[in-house]
Amino acid sequence: MRPSGPPRRSVVGALGAVPLATVGSPAPDLPAAPHRAPDARTTLLRNAELVLTMDPKVGRGELGTLEHADVLMRDGAIAAVGRRLPVPHGTRVVDTAGKLVLPGFVDIHNHLWQSSIRGGCADQDLNGWMTGCNRPTLPRITPRDMYRFVRLGALDVLRVGVTTVVDWVHPVPYETGEQYVRALDETGVRFVYAMAQDDDRLDLLSRVKKDFLDPLPLASAQVAAHPFLADVAGLRRRHEIARELGLMLNCHVLEHRTDRARDPIRALRAVGAFGPGLLMNHAIHLTEEEIALTADHGVRVAHCPLSNMRLASGIMPLPAFHRHGVPAGLGHDGGSNDTSDMFGVMKSAVGLQRALHQDPGVFPTLPAVLRMATLGGAECVGLADRVGSLTPGKRADVIVLDPATLNFAPRRNWINQIVLNGQPANVAYVFVDGHPRVARGRLLDVDTDEVVRQAEEAASRLGPL
Amino acid sequence: MRPSGPPRRSVVGALGAVPLATVGSPAPDLPAAPHRAPDARTTLLRNAELVLTMDPKVGRGELGTLEHADVLMRDGAIAAVGRRLPVPHGTRVVDTAGKLVLPGFVDIHNHLWQSSIRGGCADQDLNGWMTGCNRPTLPRITPRDMYRFVRLGALDVLRVGVTTVVDWVHPVPYETGEQYVRALDETGVRFVYAMAQDDDRLDLLSRVKKDFLDPLPLASAQVAAHPFLADVAGLRRRHEIARELGLMLNCHVLEHRTDRARDPIRALRAVGAFGPGLLMNHAIHLTEEEIALTADHGVRVAHCPLSNMRLASGIMPLPAFHRHGVPAGLGHDGGSNDTSDMFGVMKSAVGLQRALHQDPGVFPTLPAVLRMATLGGAECVGLADRVGSLTPGKRADVIVLDPATLNFAPRRNWINQIVLNGQPANVAYVFVDGHPRVARGRLLDVDTDEVVRQAEEAASRLGPL
Repeated sequence: MRPSGPPRRSVVGALGAVPLATVGSPAPDLPAAPHRAPDARTTLLRNAELVLTMDPKVGRGELGTLEHADVLMRDGAIAAVGRRLPVPHGTRVVDTAGKLVLPGFVDIHNHLWQSSIRGGCADQDLNGWMTGCNRPTLPRITPRDMYRFVRLGALDVLRVGVTTVVDWVHPVPYETGEQYVRALDETGVRFVYAMAQDDDRLDLLSRVKKDFLDPLPLASAQVAAHPFLADVAGLRRRHEIARELGLMLNCHVLEHRTDRARDPIRALRAVGAFGPGLLMNHAIHLTEEEIALTADHGVRVAHCPLSNMRLASGIMPLPAFHRHGVPAGLGHDGGSNDTSDMFGVMKSAVGLQRALHQDPGVFPTLPAVLRMATLGGAECVGLADRVGSLTPGKRADVIVLDPATLNFAPRRNWINQIVLNGQPANVAYVFVDGHPRVARGRLLDVDTDEVVRQAEEAASRLGPL
Repeated sequence: MRPSGPPRRSVVGALGAVPLATVGSPAPDLPAAPHRAPDARTTLLRNAELVLTMDPKVGRGELGTLEHADVLMRDGAIAAVGRRLPVPHGTRVVDTAGKLVLPGFVDIHNHLWQSSIRGGCADQDLNGWMTGCNRPTLPRITPRDMYRFVRLGALDVLRVGVTTVVDWVHPVPYETGEQYVRALDETGVRFVYAMAQDDDRLDLLSRVKKDFLDPLPLASAQVAAHPFLADVAGLRRRHEIARELGLMLNCHVLEHRTDRARDPIRALRAVGAFGPGLLMNHAIHLTEEEIALTADHGVRVAHCPLSNMRLASGIMPLPAFHRHGVPAGLGHDGGSNDTSDMFGVMKSAVGLQRALHQDPGVFPTLPAVLRMATLGGAECVGLADRVGSLTPGKRADVIVLDPATLNFAPRRNWINQIVLNGQPANVAYVFVDGHPRVARGRLLDVDTDEVVRQAEEAASRLGPL
């Protein structure tokens, strides 16, 4: 990012102070992102039917629920949650009567650039898809086109209520990384940029962090790796860099049954990375003993059910992780997943276990999966001090759902219905750091048609796979 | 239905000759449905990016694909499919450049009245949900409120591209059945009304068929039953009535593992119902031998993966049914499913098997699941002579998908992307019997807010469960 220089017009731009109306318009590609401070204005969500704060100290029960309550956002933070809050002068008021308010979704595993390979290698498992689609595509994406694919993917998850996304970024050159970060930044989503890099370019990790991520208040960094025992040295270097930079290590672990040959857990333990600073994605093919070890060491896991189904990876032993007390969150998992729909991810996380175990009480329950999709995910990636619940003082990442739709009403149990009936179209408002990003179901200040058109152009340059 | 009498205004009414624009307005409840002839106008879908006809004789390959092709509808039927069709005078032209055209989805198992219990008993399996939600609710629904719940459910499935729905209707009084059928009829969806009835009211089956269904060109009937060996006599009577009326028998079979105690297959065989005139819903807990028998006797099956996941019913051995050659279709399965999303149903049907078997080649493949959701479903319920493919001469049940959206583009493989990326919001147009029911993503001539409001009112009268 180059915060200096004159701001130019952007397809996704100038989001800092938009009115609650769609003002998108076609614009040239490759603008600079304006620096954005937290929204200094005060916004009140008034008289919501139900607020799920996810904080038992703020509301009732495990999900911290409040009925007919207001949420006040100020300077990008949650200022207050309660009934009939006073309305300070100059407050922007959003009437949320009849609506449901909750923390934005925290998607802890994604690869947004893979919007470039949607629907690709669809008759392959993880290994075939990696060989046939993922690996051949990545090096063919120019920095300019990377910007377009990431922007498409980031807007897609923002639209469905994701306010924090953890993007595991495959090794890309410095210039491509710059455009990757720019696209994420411009959409206004909070993001964790988990950087993978080749052995001979590991110096890029600290450079990318310093040059592109540190200046951005909504960005943070992780070091990404593929652990295997045959290359403990490479894993050790990455773990050392992560420690030096004070970052978490973010790894794919035992996603496919053939990953057993890599012995990733032994590798992670060998270099001392097996601890609370480690996020393991997928974590499907672990033994019960390895699951117990995961718990003992405070390691966290990301569950990506739609991806695991699409890529024939298997069914994660999520109930066993829970029994042992392992923190777990949810992820879309990028192009291999194809579908950006956190309701679908939650439904599948519940439904896979229920169908497999023929037990409706199996973990996760519906409240548990809602917590995984918000605060649980934030806890897994060390952001629970900032996001994941509507706790006063945390950043104002908030979504509003409209249940008065053909697929959602009538009211029986709104909490259950968020998981079971919710669809992306029910996401009426999205606020990140107090900024409105979606209003009345539409992305603000985004020319969606132009974003799609530019992604199509970029895809046509990739050619057939 | 009472076709005589003056037509009154309807919330879902006068759909017979609507312009392609939303003209909904609030209106009083309980209007009479106007009789509707097939749309006499000619409609041309022009220059679609891709047409999946599902007919290998009309297009290429198993799905009968054509690129840059037109679809002509006349008098409610498919008149022609091809490139640059001539445009007869007075034709309504819909520009489908860049869009995907396919037959409307055929949902072969639903219970639309269960929109009344969405999200209910969500911590229960099938048996607990039946006891706690289904059984106590049904008798409390008045005829007037049944109309409201069914209208909500029917519009919801129509909106997501379902043009034919098979509704397995639990036993209801004559007057309630009248309102049930009226709601289905007024939405304009093609429907199969599978009537269950108590032993002492089996006379209603022929009366309901004659009075309410026979006058409606888009309606057909089936006889519904719950087969169990302890009541072979009851099953025999229903099977006899079905034969007398020339109708299929539609049964729930081995949905929950405890259904084994009913020995439903032996019961069905004992009364001679185990044949091509039988549709078995769910069919999860069959032995390999019973699956072979199912194939040998030409019995058809309905797969409802989202329901099976929600109700912890198990994972249907769909690959085994396919290996034996059993015809299979897909269903939402009503309130127990909660989600009306045929894309979600297709994704789950594929993903459940892939995750369980860790094999991306397991049945169903993506093309196979698209066929199940359309022509395969039509074949299962004996409607393949009328719907399920865009074969000239068949009825004009057609949907148009817009892939130029954040969740769907860019183009890699449109066929795969329909299943993997599709969401309800991608359904741009829905035609049933040549009538436009959805245009530009919106239901035509329907005041959705009023439909939801009336369903909420009805639900509030049911009280807590």
